[in-house]
Formats: sequence, structure tokens, C-alpha cells
Amino acid sequence: MSFEPDLSDPFVAKAVELRRVFDHDAVERDKAGGQPLEQIRLLKESGLPSAQISKEYGGQGASWLSILRVVREFARTDGSLAHLFGYHHLPLNGVYFRGSEAQKENLLRRSARENWVWGNSGNAMSKSSSGQRDGSGWVINGFRPFSSGSHIADYLQISWENEKGQRLSAVLPADREGIVIEDDWDGIGQRQTGSGTVTFNNVRVDDAELIGSPDVPLTPFASLTSLFQQSVLLNVFVGSAQGALSEGRDYTNDTSRPWVYSGVEKHADDPWIKRKYGELYIRTLAATELADIAARSLDAAYNEGEALTLEQRGLTAIDLATANVYAGDVGLEVSSEIFEVMGARSATKANGFDRFWRNVRTHSLHNPAEYKKRTIGTWLLSGEFPTPAMYR
Amino acid sequence: MSFEPDLSDPFVAKAVELRRVFDHDAVERDKAGGQPLEQIRLLKESGLPSAQISKEYGGQGASWLSILRVVREFARTDGSLAHLFGYHHLPLNGVYFRGSEAQKENLLRRSARENWVWGNSGNAMSKSSSGQRDGSGWVINGFRPFSSGSHIADYLQISWENEKGQRLSAVLPADREGIVIEDDWDGIGQRQTGSGTVTFNNVRVDDAELIGSPDVPLTPFASLTSLFQQSVLLNVFVGSAQGALSEGRDYTNDTSRPWVYSGVEKHADDPWIKRKYGELYIRTLAATELADIAARSLDAAYNEGEALTLEQRGLTAIDLATANVYAGDVGLEVSSEIFEVMGARSATKANGFDRFWRNVRTHSLHNPAEYKKRTIGTWLLSGEFPTPAMYR
Amino acid sequence: MSFEPDLSDPFVAKAVELRRVFDHDAVERDKAGGQPLEQIRLLKESGLPSAQISKEYGGQGASWLSILRVVREFARTDGSLAHLFGYHHLPLNGVYFRGSEAQKENLLRRSARENWVWGNSGNAMSKSSSGQRDGSGWVINGFRPFSSGSHIADYLQISWENEKGQRLSAVLPADREGIVIEDDWDGIGQRQTGSGTVTFNNVRVDDAELIGSPDVPLTPFASLTSLFQQSVLLNVFVGSAQGALSEGRDYTNDTSRPWVYSGVEKHADDPWIKRKYGELYIRTLAATELADIAARSLDAAYNEGEALTLEQRGLTAIDLATANVYAGDVGLEVSSEIFEVMGARSATKANGFDRFWRNVRTHSLHNPAEYKKRTIGTWLLSGEFPTPAMYR
Amino acid sequence: MSFEPDLSDPFVAKAVELRRVFDHDAVERDKAGGQPLEQIRLLKESGLPSAQISKEYGGQGASWLSILRVVREFARTDGSLAHLFGYHHLPLNGVYFRGSEAQKENLLRRSARENWVWGNSGNAMSKSSSGQRDGSGWVINGFRPFSSGSHIADYLQISWENEKGQRLSAVLPADREGIVIEDDWDGIGQRQTGSGTVTFNNVRVDDAELIGSPDVPLTPFASLTSLFQQSVLLNVFVGSAQGALSEGRDYTNDTSRPWVYSGVEKHADDPWIKRKYGELYIRTLAATELADIAARSLDAAYNEGEALTLEQRGLTAIDLATANVYAGDVGLEVSSEIFEVMGARSATKANGFDRFWRNVRTHSLHNPAEYKKRTIGTWLLSGEFPTPAMYR
Repeated sequence: MSFEPDLSDPFVAKAVELRRVFDHDAVERDKAGGQPLEQIRLLKESGLPSAQISKEYGGQGASWLSILRVVREFARTDGSLAHLFGYHHLPLNGVYFRGSEAQKENLLRRSARENWVWGNSGNAMSKSSSGQRDGSGWVINGFRPFSSGSHIADYLQISWENEKGQRLSAVLPADREGIVIEDDWDGIGQRQTGSGTVTFNNVRVDDAELIGSPDVPLTPFASLTSLFQQSVLLNVFVGSAQGALSEGRDYTNDTSRPWVYSGVEKHADDPWIKRKYGELYIRTLAATELADIAARSLDAAYNEGEALTLEQRGLTAIDLATANVYAGDVGLEVSSEIFEVMGARSATKANGFDRFWRNVRTHSLHNPAEYKKRTIGTWLLSGEFPTPAMYR
Repeated sequence: MSFEPDLSDPFVAKAVELRRVFDHDAVERDKAGGQPLEQIRLLKESGLPSAQISKEYGGQGASWLSILRVVREFARTDGSLAHLFGYHHLPLNGVYFRGSEAQKENLLRRSARENWVWGNSGNAMSKSSSGQRDGSGWVINGFRPFSSGSHIADYLQISWENEKGQRLSAVLPADREGIVIEDDWDGIGQRQTGSGTVTFNNVRVDDAELIGSPDVPLTPFASLTSLFQQSVLLNVFVGSAQGALSEGRDYTNDTSRPWVYSGVEKHADDPWIKRKYGELYIRTLAATELADIAARSLDAAYNEGEALTLEQRGLTAIDLATANVYAGDVGLEVSSEIFEVMGARSATKANGFDRFWRNVRTHSLHNPAEYKKRTIGTWLLSGEFPTPAMYR
Repeated sequence: MSFEPDLSDPFVAKAVELRRVFDHDAVERDKAGGQPLEQIRLLKESGLPSAQISKEYGGQGASWLSILRVVREFARTDGSLAHLFGYHHLPLNGVYFRGSEAQKENLLRRSARENWVWGNSGNAMSKSSSGQRDGSGWVINGFRPFSSGSHIADYLQISWENEKGQRLSAVLPADREGIVIEDDWDGIGQRQTGSGTVTFNNVRVDDAELIGSPDVPLTPFASLTSLFQQSVLLNVFVGSAQGALSEGRDYTNDTSRPWVYSGVEKHADDPWIKRKYGELYIRTLAATELADIAARSLDAAYNEGEALTLEQRGLTAIDLATANVYAGDVGLEVSSEIFEVMGARSATKANGFDRFWRNVRTHSLHNPAEYKKRTIGTWLLSGEFPTPAMYR
Repeated sequence: MSFEPDLSDPFVAKAVELRRVFDHDAVERDKAGGQPLEQIRLLKESGLPSAQISKEYGGQGASWLSILRVVREFARTDGSLAHLFGYHHLPLNGVYFRGSEAQKENLLRRSARENWVWGNSGNAMSKSSSGQRDGSGWVINGFRPFSSGSHIADYLQISWENEKGQRLSAVLPADREGIVIEDDWDGIGQRQTGSGTVTFNNVRVDDAELIGSPDVPLTPFASLTSLFQQSVLLNVFVGSAQGALSEGRDYTNDTSRPWVYSGVEKHADDPWIKRKYGELYIRTLAATELADIAARSLDAAYNEGEALTLEQRGLTAIDLATANVYAGDVGLEVSSEIFEVMGARSATKANGFDRFWRNVRTHSLHNPAEYKKRTIGTWLLSGEFPTPAMYR
């Protein structure tokens, strides 16, 4: 048992290759923010964007375990690319879950063939864009915050409220007229996720582009989207912990100096340093194992298709909440404590080791651990599952 | 993913039945200390003492995963029986690892047939018994502390030092003349493990009863004994956490009253109570998963037999150390914090919920977490494995 | 700065003397439960029961800081005596706060002269005793749980509900006919506090024995009683942490053996042991300082008398909640973790080191930290103080 | 008890005024790094740089408690200015401790009159500058890292090794020819401390500028310098925790939105938010109190002058180590956890709340908590004090 990647999984093996490339300038790109254009190009070239698409629609039928391990692998050096790759699957599966057969045939197949990267601008917590009926479609105005991936997407899912306050969603090419990527993402971490505002200036949406309908309630299967989101988040945390620990280990071995009163010649020979690495490893490994188990649980639920019961969906949600809370804590702890065993000279912007903490801190705020814990506790005490909804 | 037992494993299913019986008077027996005679009788009747013995010698060939899950299951109500059942496998495998073919044929086969329970009186940290050559055997005098299971054993492994200070071991019937079980175990927990002193008054050991020889170094395979010990310990911790959490949940649901300022009618509806159960569950589950993974790692190593390499043995040791440290922490935390959500009236001797903390606290002192962490850290930093030896 | 007692305070100096005597058989008495009769005799002989009574009524006018440091000192070996001495001041000050001038003159003066020890049987959470008017008094029937000190008291405060459900209280000699001390206290800790049931069989109470009236609301000053209770609890926690740490240090120095792989000759020379003692000291000291500051805050509030404002009362409540939560955590942590640096042989019933954990665990359940934290947070966020009431 | 500043202390009152000014652009300056020139001008104008200088030499004779509370106050918004102001006192007291009477008369008096700010370039861990005798002085070449304050100093203490490897120090005007401030400080926090490299190109030092002599051992009194350093560090941590908590509280009250499933209208009314603020307050307050007590201990030691014994110096070192370790932990925890109660929108670079964590993380690496804990544990176990030396 170890947190090193399983190279026998071809998707993971590709991710390891890409991660090594992303690593070259991960620190510089974290400073710069903006768009990781070259990295997205390489990602598309690798074929990973079509990995999870069903073979039925020309994809590669990768399991969620593979996909989430790719997320984790990227997060070992670059939380933004991990996030972009992971969230890409949310609108994609929106089409899969709620699209018409024609939409699936068209969009999934093209997405698979061209390895489109999907973004979204439909944050469910905000109701800041609205649509007016116009012929056989809608005209959208307003804006939506937290539009991760909108800055590098081929295709975009957008949302707005209709006059009844119902939320509608559509998918459309990212270069549709009237869509303005504001490039105002200013997070302390996840710097290249482009999670800023998208403004809609009379954006025209055709009815054929609508995905699902607010009048058709989500089935347990279709409600898995919120669990994908949890999965991505938690694997960013796990990968960040792994990355901080790996980079820390190398720095400690190669660069750290023993403490002046330690009496040892090599920093790594100080009993304290060994103990601390032992502690960090234990927690990182536990997080990794919970993440894997949650991913397998998600695969089992996904593979049920529309036969998925509320109960199995609920147990999967509990598994994901469990892994998510744990991963968040471990991500924060490891990414902060690792400095203690690297030493004072490690804490420079040039080294950029702080990006792990900033990434996890930023990303972990999007679903409070408090509420996940209550969800788990409710189930443990009463057997009751969370009602499917965003974030749970 | 849940910590409930896998009833499809017939050994675990039997353990669940026994656990329910043990549970009837677990609190009373914890108070009384001494010998769980009736429970040991039931254990033998169940056939579990022969579960792990190789089919080659008439046993049932159970995996370590099964055996350790049985340990865990017992520990959900009775850490002593978990300990006794778990440690039983140490001298048993001493014969398997280092015994002559004749010894194996004789002892393992009889042990399997009659479902012997094995104890030991050979604590490796003490050198308080010594042997004198006498014809074709030895005469042993002195004593040995921490002799778990000696008070209920059919067969006993004992150890002593020879005049060169080398440690010799033999196995013999527990009623051998001169063996005095002092019944002086006074631990704050693990009250029925009989882990007290055994005095040797001119105990006669025949050379045919010797197991192994101090002049023949342990192979990696034979050195697995110390990992069995770690495995038992950690599964006692995990089972204790599970037991505390299960009993706590039932008490909270059935008996606890809401706090006077809570504004809720049912204690379990206080957001705080839900959160706390969520937290306790997450940690307990993580400990359970690490324990399972470590057990599987142990199975893989064991199944290599004498082909087991130092490297694989080392990785298994790291897995066990990881699971052990984590389980110890979780066992202590859950068994203490559970009181906070049960409330003031739960903390009575009649309820006996404190036995979980006392059991873990007692049992976890036998191999300091500090040194396990250093072992893990050493490996992570340098790739170096622990030298096989007791406790590692 | 250190947690050693300030011997220049004569009350504390006396407490240190008594603590040394209490220490002789603290472990045995913890096992036995029941009544610490000889210790209560010595306590009365020392004059400490009259220390806090105002000089105006013949007492010694000790500050709360002194009284609470005495509590803390006792708790270093015996949480029960700490509790009994501390809680003694609750009914005593009930008379001071709400008694008539005649009652004060009579009861406080006699209590001061004879060094009475007061107990109570009026748990405010239960409504299990009731009174009927009968001539110029009441006849009480029913029972009250958690009657700390009732088993060794000279004088007792009892409570019951009248037909309107209002709670009335009276003080009366503990040997009043019809009062039955059930001796059924079965806590896992605080074993000699006698915190069990008191049954009332037609107990006759004269109107002159009533203290206060349910129709007269508590002033901020009179509402300090609930803060005294918090103060006692928290100082039991602090003293328990100090006691565990002191006893642990002595055991480590005198008895513990170095770990087999430590490479040191003295256990105390293992860097890990030093670090752990450093950690335990830091937390124990922080708890001690917060306790002192809270005691001084309580003194300042008490010295205001009826001029005490709701605001100052509120700030004092915040100080006490702060110290209480912190002390509870530290008490639990130190009393459990200390075993790790003492080693496996320390965890015996004969050593009795586990009494510290059991005492804190038992005592800390009587006011959930969760609600104290919310009280503090409410104040920090909004400036709002807790409404004076029991436990806050 | 609260962590709000004591405005009755005129030095603290001035610090509060300055802190409010510093706060205007603290976030921007954290981003920019470099020199806080305007703030240093205001600091000098306030007279605080001469506060701690003895009245004997024209200063204001402020206590260390006052000085360190000023440090703390600055750190509530700007860790760099806190650091610069705090470290200013190290070379200043180097003159006081080891300077000749003429040097004191000259330098301290002028420093007091003109409110000089002192910096240093003499990191004791590096031996990267060296001196050659040249007439009645030295010529220095090489460099020194971690030269905090060198970029804004009026006067500078520099160090170098002589040919025997002994460390010599001198104080001289910061604009001395050959001194090159490299402006290469690249820390992730404490961005305006200028803690980068100073290069010495044939810097000429006159013997009259030497402070002390390597052949004269430090007295206990003169060895207090390392304790000043500890004091500054720990008060930066405490102030950072206070600042994060204050800014967090305001943000939560003014800006945070309730969680979508909370059922409350105001975020601050969620029981979880209250609890968490309660927790953060408790730890921040404990850190503040330990810091005050340590400062008072330092004042007592300082006021002994050359009469200071090794024992009192040792106890003071223990007090400072205790407060330092605790403050470091609290600083890190509060500055990270505060985001959880502010919510996802708080984690922007514009808000700059992450500067607190970055400041503490950076600054806390300069003296490992591990070794401070060992120092405390050694004393607790054996009564032995740390040998006076840098960092202890």
C-alpha cells in the first residue's frame, strides 16, 4: 500500500507523463494565473478528455476510479489542471444524464472524437443570470460567478433562471456571441482554473441546446452529478497532499540542513524528521485509500444506470462525504506541516511549495465539511440518506 | 463502505454470533477480570481456534484477513477475547515457522482437531527465566511477565535464556508440572487476558519440545510473527473504536436526553450530535480500511512462504505500522469522545462504556507509536525497511 | 510561570498539606468509592470549609482565586475531594445570595464556626421531587439524582417543584428525618463524590428553611452560582492535568525503562520523551493560566455584590466558559497521553493513573463544551452575553 | 479577559493608531514586497523606535511587555512591520549589553534622539562573510542571508568570522560604502521584512565599531538577546492569530452568506459558525495570555541587569519557549481555519486574508517547535535549563 500511481492503468500512466510536463512550470503558472493553454493542448492530445465518455458514443469508457486517479495525479503538481480536467466531466455527464438521444449522439460523439474540454458557467448558488423566451429559444443576460474552465473550454454549460425562478441549463460552443469571459478570477489558490465571472450579453440559446427541463425531476442516476463534483474536489485534496509530501521528501533529502542542535549530519537522520514524515505518510495514505473506495462506490452506482436506487445513491453519497471530509483535512495539514520538516529556506515563492496549501484551502471552501459530517452522522444515527441535491 | 462485518465470510459470521454471546456479560467480566472460561469453551466449540491452521495439517486455511476480522469483531465488545484469540496464533505459527516436520504433524494436527487455544509466556523484553541443561532437555526456573492467555491455554509457548544469554523457546501442555499461573494481571484494561506472571519451578522441557534454535537466524518468513502481533493489536484498536461507536449510537438513540438549551426534542437531532457522529465515523472507517489493507498485505507475504523476500516483508511491515499507528489513535479518540455525545448519565460502571478506552490505552502501550512512525518515515525518506525484529 | 502551587497563599499552603495526606490512599479510595470520611474530617479540621465565608459572618473572606486553587490542588490527586470542597460553596452562597439576613446570621455564622461541609440534592435538570404545603412548611417526596456531597454533608440544600412546576429550595441539616442517601453513585470517575440519588420520604421543611423564592428573579449577582459551578468543574480538570503530569514525570524518572530500540540508557533521555513532556506541559500551563484569569474575573464580579451589572456578569461568564472548555480538553488529553511516556507497565490498577482520565471524563460531561463554545462565539460575533441560567 | 489592546498603555495606544494606518494598504504591500518606506517614516515619527531605550540614554524606558504588545498590535494587520519593529531591538540591545560606555553614550543616545531604526545582517547560522585585519579595523567581504530590516535601517549590525572562525560583530551606518542590500527576499510571507542577502564588498569597519569580543563570553544578561528574538517571533504569531480572527469576524458579520442548507438567515446564526468562533477565540486568548506572561518574565529578567542568574535566565527561556510553541500552533490554526467560517468568496487575493497564514508559516520555521518542546521537557524532567545560545 502506497500512494504511488498504478501505472498498469493506461489512463493513469498517461496522467503521470503529463504531470511531469505540467510540473516544469507549475510554480510559474501558479504565480501567473490565467490560462494553461499549452497544458490544455497537451491534455487534449493525450486523449484523456474523451476517456470517460461511454464507448457507445465513441469514448473510451474509463471508470471513475481511473478518471479520479488522473485528477489526483495532476493535483500532485497542479491543482488547477486537476480541477479543470475533473470538472470537465460535469457538463459532459449532464448531456449523458439528461440530454436527448440526438444530443448525446451529436455532442458526446463529437466531444469524444475531438477531445473537447468542457467548462461551465452555471453556479447553482447564484441566480444572477436570466433568460427571456425568444422564438424557439432564449436570450440570456446577466452573469454567473465561479465559472471554472470557461476560459479554456471548447463547449460550455450555462444556466439561468426563467421567470418562475426555475433554473434552466444549456450547452453551447464557448465562442457563442455574447459570452464574455471576464478573466477576473482572483482566488488565493487554484490560480489557473479561470473560476471567475462569465457575463451574458444577449446570448442566444436555441431550444435544441437545452439540457433537461426544470419540470422533470432528477432521477437518482442523474443526481450523481453532485457526487462527481465532490469526487473531483476530494481528489484534488488527496493529490495535493501527495504532491506536498513528495516534494517535501525530495527537498528534505536533497537540500534541508540539519538543525544546529540536532547532532546529526543529515537532516533526514533527525528522529523528529523521520517521525513527522511517518505521520504525514499515514494520513496521506488513509486519505488515498478512502478516495479509492469512494471512487469504486461511485463506479458501482454509475454502472447501475437508471436502475440506481435512492438507497445505493445515498450510500455512495455517504462514501463520498466521508472521503471528502477526510481528504480536506489531510490536504490542509500535510501542505502546511511539510514546511516544518523542510526548514526555513524552503518557504520561498521560487520554491512555490505553498501552492498546495493555497489550492486546498481555496477548493475546500466550496462545500463545508460541517454539513458533510452532519450528513454522515444523520445516516449513522437514523439510517437516513441525504436528499439528492447540489453538494450532496 | 462501512465497518459492519462481512457475513459472507463464514469465519466472520461465526465471530458475530460469538460476539453477541460475549456481549451479554462483557461489562461484568471486565469488572471481574480473571478467566473467561465459558467464552473460551464456546470459542473452541465454534472451531475458530483451528481456522488459521493450514489445511495441510487439518486446519481450515483461513486467511489472515478473516482471522483479523474475527479479532476485530470480538473487540467490538470484549478486547480480552479478541486479544486471546489473536495472540493464540503467535505460538501456533511459531511451530509452523520453526518447528520440525514431526512437530508440525503432531502439534498442528492435534491443535486443529481439538481446537486447542495457545498461550505464551515468553515476553522477549524480559530475561527473567533461565534454563539448565539436564539430560536430553532443560530445567527451567524463574518467571516471565505479560503471559497473555497462559490462564486459559491448552498449550503454551515458554521462553528462557540459556547460559550464553540466548533465548530458547519450547511449546508444552499448559498443565506441565512446575508451571504456576500467578493470576496477578492488574491492567486497567484488557482485564481477562491473563497477561500476568507465569512462574517456572523446575519446569522440565524435553529437547523434542524445543521450537527452533537460537543459532538458526529467522528467515523473513519466520520473522512474520512480530507482524502478527502488530496485526492483533491494531485490530483490537479498530474493533474497540467500532464497538464504542456502535454502542454509543444505540445509547444516543435510545437513552440520551437533549441538552437543556438545544431546542430539539431528540438528542440525535442536535446538529452537534450529528456532526460528532459523522467525525467519529470517518475516523473509524479510515482505521478499518487501513486495517483491511494491512491484513491483505500480510496474507500476500504469508502466502509467499519461505520465498518471502526481505523487501516484501519490509513493505508489509510498513503497511502494518501505518495501520497500527492510525488505529491506536482512532481507538483512543473514539472511545473517549463518544461520551460527549452520550451525555453525563452514560458514564457509569454499570454501562461500562469506559472499557473501550481502558482496553485501547492498555494495549496500545506495548509498541510505541513514536517508533512505528520513525520506521515509516525512514522508509519514506530513504527506502530502507525495518530490520525484522520484535515489534517491527 | 509554572503550575506549582503558590505557597505564599495560606489557603493553598493548607491545601498542599492536605493533598499530601489525601494522596496516601487516593488510589485505594478511588477503587472503593463511598465516603472519604477521614479526609472530610481533616478538611474540616483545616478550617478550609469556612475559608470563603465572608468575614462579616465569621468566615475568613478568602478570594475565589484561593478557593479554586485549593480545588485544583486537591484534584492533583483526588478529584472527588476537589469536587466536594468546590461544590460545598454552591449552597453556601445560595444562602449568602438569597437568604434572609436572619438565615445568613444563623447559618453562615454557624457554618463558619463549625466548618460545616455543605452538600446538595437539587439537580436543576430533573424534576423528580415535589412538595405539598403543610401548615407553615412543606412535605417533600420523590428523589433527586446527582446529589454530590449529600453522603458526607453537615447541611444540605434540597430542591423540589411546587404544584405550578416552580422550583423551590431549602437548606436543612443532612440528618433530617426522611432524607435517604441511596449510596448508588456508580460513575466511572469522581468515585467518592457521592453523586447519586437522594430519596425524600415525607421530608418536612419549615418555611424558615426556604432560600429565596421562585417568584423573585435572580439578580446578576445571585446568578453567579452557575459560574461557581463552572469554576469548580474547570479547576478539577486543571488539577487533574497537573496531577497526571506530575505523577507521570516521577514515574518516567524513577521507573520507566527506555524503549528497546531507543539507544538511550535513561528513558527520559529519549528525544521523544522530552518532546512529549514539553507538549503536555505547554497545554497544562495554558489551562492553568486561563483558570487563574477566570478566577480573578470571578472575584471581580463577586466583589461588586448587588451592583454587579449584567455586562460584567456576562464577561465573567465568557471568561469562565473559555477556561472551562480549554481545561476540559487539556484534562482529557494529558491524562490519556501521559501513559505513552510512562510505558506499558504503568497501566495497572495498583498505580491508578487512569483515575485522572476517568475523573475528567465523568466530570466534563456535565456541561457540553459545544454549548460553551457557541456562547463564546455568539459574544465574539455579536457582543451578546449569555442569559444567566444554570450552566452559563 | 480579551485580546483587545490595552489602550491605557501609551505605547500600545500609539501602536493601535499606526496599525490602523498600516492596515489601509497592508494587503497591497504584502503583494508588492519591498520596502514599507512610508510606514517606517510614520513609525519613526511616532517615537516608538526609542521606546525601549533606557531613560539613562535618552529613551523612554518602555517595558518589554509594552514593546511586545506593540509588535503584536502591528502583526494584526502587517507581520512585516511587526517583525521590523521587534527585531530592531536586537542590535540595539547588543550595544546595551556588550557595548563600551562610550558606544552606549554615543549610539543609544543618538538612536533615542533620532528614533533610528536598526537592522541586522549577521545571521548566526551562516558563516558566509569574513574579515581581514587592516590597520585599526577590519575589511569585510562575503555576504549574510536573512538580513531582516537591512533594507530600511538607519543603523546596521553586521557579523563576520575572523580567521579563527570566531564570530565578530560591529554596528555601523546602513549606508557604509560596500554594503549592498540585494533586495532578493523571496519569502512566501513576511514580504516586507527585507530578509534577504546583504553583500559586503570591502566594507571597512573601525575597531571602535566592534561590539563585544568573541573572547568575552556572554553573561546570562547579555544572552537575553536570543530570548528577545523568541519574543518577537511569538508575538508576531499571536498578533497574526488576533488579526485573522478580527478580520474574519467582521467578514462573517458583514459579508458571508449562510450555507444553502443552514436554514438560518444570517451566517453568524448557524450554530456551527458560533462554535467555530468560540474555538478560535479560546486558542487565541490562551496564546495571548501565555505571551503576556512570557513578556513579564522577560521584563523581570531584564530588570535584574548583570545580576541575572543562570537559573532565572533559564526559567525565562522556558516561559518563552512555552509561549512560542503555543503561539506558533495557534497562529497557523487560526489563520487557516478562519476561512472555513468566512466561506468560499473570502479566499481572494484582493481580500488578502491568506497573508496571516503565510506570515506565520514563514516566520515559525526559524526555530523548530520540536527543539523548544525538548528544551521544556528536559527542564520538566530534570530541572536542567537550556544553555544560553541562539534560539534558546
